[in-house]
Amino acid sequence: MKIRPATDADRDAVWKIFHEVAATGDTYALDPNISREDALAYWFAPGTHTYVAEQPAIGIAGTYVLRPNQSGGGSHVANAGFMVSANARGQGLGRAMAEHCLSEAHRFGFGAMQFNYVISTNTAAIRLWQDLGFEIVGTLPDAFRHPEKGYVDVHVMYRSLIA
Amino acid sequence: MKIRPATDADRDAVWKIFHEVAATGDTYALDPNISREDALAYWFAPGTHTYVAEQPAIGIAGTYVLRPNQSGGGSHVANAGFMVSANARGQGLGRAMAEHCLSEAHRFGFGAMQFNYVISTNTAAIRLWQDLGFEIVGTLPDAFRHPEKGYVDVHVMYRSLIA
Repeated sequence: MKIRPATDADRDAVWKIFHEVAATGDTYALDPNISREDALAYWFAPGTHTYVAEQPAIGIAGTYVLRPNQSGGGSHVANAGFMVSANARGQGLGRAMAEHCLSEAHRFGFGAMQFNYVISTNTAAIRLWQDLGFEIVGTLPDAFRHPEKGYVDVHVMYRSLIA
Repeated sequence: MKIRPATDADRDAVWKIFHEVAATGDTYALDPNISREDALAYWFAPGTHTYVAEQPAIGIAGTYVLRPNQSGGGSHVANAGFMVSANARGQGLGRAMAEHCLSEAHRFGFGAMQFNYVISTNTAAIRLWQDLGFEIVGTLPDAFRHPEKGYVDVHVMYRSLIA
């Protein structure tokens, strides 16, 4: 597996993954009908570092973004978002991208990383973040309307990057 | 005092307040040097309801925004942001705008309201939100670099709007 910065040539592959994740609608608070243009504008926004993960057999199977979570006095805290193609789940792609992301965040000099919106039913993600040193620092009651489970809680997760 | 939706004619007055708040840099994580164009694009973004508060003696002295905090499955939770001109502080403008905002959020059918980034040193705001039924549901350690106090905590505050 190779993880590298995304280029313009990756936009089709990124949109395919993004569209699949948004349409499923159970891990991100995104409009399931978001347009390709709006999706790519968000994922490749100015100030956002965008990466892709390539699997030898299936090509680009994952993508992530790394960016400041806030401007001004909040810009030392990073935010990140991860998406994995459904046909590449359970192969450690999420963990590999997360470790790559933490390393990049260190390299850019961020002092902490925050996930603003970890849906409580996404237990695989929560376990992975906890395993990588993130803690649940807040819970938003009933903040996400899950397509099958109805209103469920959302967690805010946080990790210092200073040793 | 009159609180009403902002119009294009209010842009100069809104920018004056926004610039003052951003430049002070102790209550919002905003670039203190943000341009007028970027500031107004943010405050008048598509999907954002923007309001102004007029004081008889001094004209437009406050402004607030109300919008969905997330898209898709998170769009039933509102987010809001408030700014008051320095020369109008301590006159109840913040509380009046907040009460107006909660009423508007009810009217639009939001089920809850979330503040993502309440800086812990902004004790007047925290007291006001608590008085209006908001609770601190999370704390981000050292997430804000205060211009005088160094790294300080940031709170996530939340309130259900369902009786």
